[in-house]
Amino acid sequence: MGALKHVLVGKPIPSHQAHHERYTRSSGLAILSSDALSSVAYATEEILRTLLIAGTASLWLVTPIGCVIAGLMLVIAFSYRQTIRAYPGGGGAYRVARENIGTTAGLIAAAALLLDYVLTVAVSIAAGVAAITSAFPAWHVNTVELSLGFLVLIAIGNMRGIRESARIFSVPTYFFLGSMGVLLVVGMFKVLTGQIAPIESASAVFVPSETASLTIFLVLRAFANGCTALTGIEAISDGVPAFKPPEAKNAATTLLIMAGCAVVMFMGVTLLADAFHVVPRQDETVISQLNRAILGGRGPLYYMVQAATTMILVLAANTAFSDFPRLASIIARDKFLPRQLANQGDRLAFSNGILILSFLSGVLLVAFGGDTHALIPLYMLGVFVSFTLSQAGMVVKWRRERKRGWRVGAYVSGLGATLTLIVLFVVAITKFREGAWIIIVLIPILVAHFTSIHRHYDKVAEQLSLKGLAVSEKKHNTVIVPIGGVHRAVVQALEYARTLSDDVRAIYVDVDPHATQEIRDTWQHWGKGIRLEILASPFRSVMEPLLEYIELTNDERPGDFITVLLPEFVPARWWHHLLHNQRALLIKGALLFRRNIVVTSVPYHLHE
Amino acid sequence: MGALKHVLVGKPIPSHQAHHERYTRSSGLAILSSDALSSVAYATEEILRTLLIAGTASLWLVTPIGCVIAGLMLVIAFSYRQTIRAYPGGGGAYRVARENIGTTAGLIAAAALLLDYVLTVAVSIAAGVAAITSAFPAWHVNTVELSLGFLVLIAIGNMRGIRESARIFSVPTYFFLGSMGVLLVVGMFKVLTGQIAPIESASAVFVPSETASLTIFLVLRAFANGCTALTGIEAISDGVPAFKPPEAKNAATTLLIMAGCAVVMFMGVTLLADAFHVVPRQDETVISQLNRAILGGRGPLYYMVQAATTMILVLAANTAFSDFPRLASIIARDKFLPRQLANQGDRLAFSNGILILSFLSGVLLVAFGGDTHALIPLYMLGVFVSFTLSQAGMVVKWRRERKRGWRVGAYVSGLGATLTLIVLFVVAITKFREGAWIIIVLIPILVAHFTSIHRHYDKVAEQLSLKGLAVSEKKHNTVIVPIGGVHRAVVQALEYARTLSDDVRAIYVDVDPHATQEIRDTWQHWGKGIRLEILASPFRSVMEPLLEYIELTNDERPGDFITVLLPEFVPARWWHHLLHNQRALLIKGALLFRRNIVVTSVPYHLHE
Repeated sequence: MGALKHVLVGKPIPSHQAHHERYTRSSGLAILSSDALSSVAYATEEILRTLLIAGTASLWLVTPIGCVIAGLMLVIAFSYRQTIRAYPGGGGAYRVARENIGTTAGLIAAAALLLDYVLTVAVSIAAGVAAITSAFPAWHVNTVELSLGFLVLIAIGNMRGIRESARIFSVPTYFFLGSMGVLLVVGMFKVLTGQIAPIESASAVFVPSETASLTIFLVLRAFANGCTALTGIEAISDGVPAFKPPEAKNAATTLLIMAGCAVVMFMGVTLLADAFHVVPRQDETVISQLNRAILGGRGPLYYMVQAATTMILVLAANTAFSDFPRLASIIARDKFLPRQLANQGDRLAFSNGILILSFLSGVLLVAFGGDTHALIPLYMLGVFVSFTLSQAGMVVKWRRERKRGWRVGAYVSGLGATLTLIVLFVVAITKFREGAWIIIVLIPILVAHFTSIHRHYDKVAEQLSLKGLAVSEKKHNTVIVPIGGVHRAVVQALEYARTLSDDVRAIYVDVDPHATQEIRDTWQHWGKGIRLEILASPFRSVMEPLLEYIELTNDERPGDFITVLLPEFVPARWWHHLLHNQRALLIKGALLFRRNIVVTSVPYHLHE
Repeated sequence: MGALKHVLVGKPIPSHQAHHERYTRSSGLAILSSDALSSVAYATEEILRTLLIAGTASLWLVTPIGCVIAGLMLVIAFSYRQTIRAYPGGGGAYRVARENIGTTAGLIAAAALLLDYVLTVAVSIAAGVAAITSAFPAWHVNTVELSLGFLVLIAIGNMRGIRESARIFSVPTYFFLGSMGVLLVVGMFKVLTGQIAPIESASAVFVPSETASLTIFLVLRAFANGCTALTGIEAISDGVPAFKPPEAKNAATTLLIMAGCAVVMFMGVTLLADAFHVVPRQDETVISQLNRAILGGRGPLYYMVQAATTMILVLAANTAFSDFPRLASIIARDKFLPRQLANQGDRLAFSNGILILSFLSGVLLVAFGGDTHALIPLYMLGVFVSFTLSQAGMVVKWRRERKRGWRVGAYVSGLGATLTLIVLFVVAITKFREGAWIIIVLIPILVAHFTSIHRHYDKVAEQLSLKGLAVSEKKHNTVIVPIGGVHRAVVQALEYARTLSDDVRAIYVDVDPHATQEIRDTWQHWGKGIRLEILASPFRSVMEPLLEYIELTNDERPGDFITVLLPEFVPARWWHHLLHNQRALLIKGALLFRRNIVVTSVPYHLHE
């Protein structure tokens, strides 16, 4: 076990080395920005797919919609920059909303974010696999298997801890930035020099399941889908304490760099898609089409860009793998989640959270067949709930504290909050039927769970409180050893019993007078002076007289302890359990709910 | 739990009343003969269905085949009468074969019989349901549900114990004997007075899945299928000790009465089927057709006979419910099956065996869609293996003991053994592909299991033997209480610890200096003079320093005991378990395989 664990998750790290694990700006950008950057790979396509419902003639709208989204992104980035500075200890939406608006607001933000992390993993992996199957159409049939394979890889990578994560994930992020840079520059050059040819594809043009004329509602739907480009901006504000000191400053700078990259790439892809008249296709992504058109078909450069896209997408899931367990542990420390999620384990990475996240995203990937477009409608709702609550919380904070420059700060946060609230409504309304309702239902359910867990821990703390408890006298302990014969396991249990108390009683239930006499005889030698009680059993039941005896003994000394010692075999093979210890199990079950009775198994080790 | 158990299985019976539960001849006949008698309901039909493969012209062969089977039945009955007298303590094939031929022969017989009991339950219930659906064709779609319903009813009836069984099952057995009597007498009267009319039916004529000409092989197949009539004869010889004294005499007489009834009814139905030119049909049984033809269509008499047939068939399963648990307990007492099957429980009925039997037959009924004809090929192999081994064992016994009249005895047993061996080969060969192979595969697998269980118990007994063990001195017990804070559950555990030993150490792992100082402070008041050990944890792991400490303590005093006391919550609701006790579970798991270390949970009861 220990060896396997070390291979899978690496060696433990001593506490005094913990700060070496912190992010620099560049490693922080690599780890925390993959979510935000990678949405470039599918956001434009989601807009185009929606516009296609009104026919190819309406695809030009992708550019104005893209501009609005890019503007929104910048507002949110500046708003979150303020949050980072105000909360150098980590300013997740949960904390900001809880401190400034109230506990319920905080829990709503927490629920929204946790759901969102699960979706980030599922959507990013699905889109990463789509980039692969665009390059290798024959693999299309294995979409789900490929997705689950990547999921397992990422989960193991994260189990190994933060520093290895940075090492693994820096390469692909910068590789993606570089590849996209090449694509955009060459693309712009071709546009400016007028080298635009129509794009052929082996894949059929995507056929929406409905057709409609171009209405405001449809434009809003397209906009809502495009807003996937905004996801991931909050990742850095959650991860501030993981940066090297000065944490807040490094994190804020990283955030602005990231937003800049995201805006440039998203607008670049959107403008090029418009310029090259890209039409969404069934089995080939928009990026893959653009890539072929710009870099001259399926050559080495084409495969390089596709590989970089896959890598950044599959690794984008890593943002969630850094943040989900961290957020869960913060919530758990506040007693709104089970306390084992608060546990850092011995490897800094929070293994319980990682396991839960992997499991849930795996379920989503299987349930939705690894299809990005089917997952998208569930996606953004959570992000925008947390965006809105976090920025609204900041407005409250600015107004309450009235620090220098509070008016400008409150204005920026307020603008952000208002815009994201509007987007939230647009998303909820336009995508309700496609899956957003699931999130709308789940958030209050999760909040109710958080609250009930908190209530439970409060009640337990109350029951455990030492207030009013008096220091008591030393109590008496009656040790009862039920025996079914005299053999090595029983002799060992009796030896143990003698160390516990001077009041030890071996209990034998008489179901066969012959066997009983045999026990009495053996007892002369092996009983070691311990009292042997023979209980009559008119119904040949072994359990009932025994339980009755224990009950009576308990009644005799109400405040004192009773210890029931059960000689129990530890078999050499697991299936041997089926052949032993049935009675011990029954006795344990029967005594589980009695006060002052402690049931102890004295293990006897069988070696074959 | 207790109340529910009493409603389902009745009140316990004191030992001194046990002999009141014994069978009289008439109650023994009712309980143990239903299997043998009830096969009348389907044996003739199985012969006809096979003959139909060669066309309706060959159906007349049912009479000669029936005669051979009836003769065989009488030989086996007389042979088993001898077994009962030789084994008044219960002469099942297992015991007879084991004592006279060898352990492996005994185990083969045991495996064969156990499988056969399971099939008796499945076949009888399936045929009983067929009798119902013949009367009410609309219920045909619910065959499996009806079968499982009856199975549950019988299982509960048997859980309630032997006397109630006799009371419940006497009525239908005698009702069936009476109803069949009426049918046969009226039928013979009609035949003798020449009132034979062709039988119309709403159900289509049965179409075999193959056609063939009439070969010796086909006649043998028909014979093999008809031999289902022979199943159940051995039931009484297994159940001898359940009879009132003189057990052997009562049982032997009951056996002859049973064989007489079975022969008369089987031959009666066979001759009538021949005389009335009955053709097997898809959805109506042969008995139902005869019944309509003889008793004048679907009138009250018709429904009476169908009801009686259903009842005897469904209750025939009861033979197996009496004998399966009894045989299993005999085998278990010989240590070839897990010892919990040897346990009589507190209700004489052997509840474990009943549960296993019900489960396995339920699986068969579902797997074979509750279809009698599909189950038949699996059926007889087991019976004939045990017939052959049991009678061969008797031959050996006669020759060895040479008691008065041993030559005649050996001749009868030898004739029986030879005939059943021949039938065994006929069944195995003609029905191999239809399902008999399953039994041929399962018997050696079961025998191998029996042997490996026996070997395990032998090894355990060797390891537990007191031979060579010296009486030891009183040992030392170091009590270790890992604590994560100081609260009521911990205070209770410390109180308990103080009763166990003078060497108690509370262990706290330091992961946060602030919290550690708090513990030290609280310890002044609540520690009660118990030594508090603070362990350093460079890796922030709580488990590792703790386990290391336990290991070191164990090394210091190699022969002595260590008790690890874990304060553990007993929550008010089951799901609260998810919120607590994770660490206790981990510690228990880690220490499970260490010698001389006893891990004890001190339960603290939460009330909400």
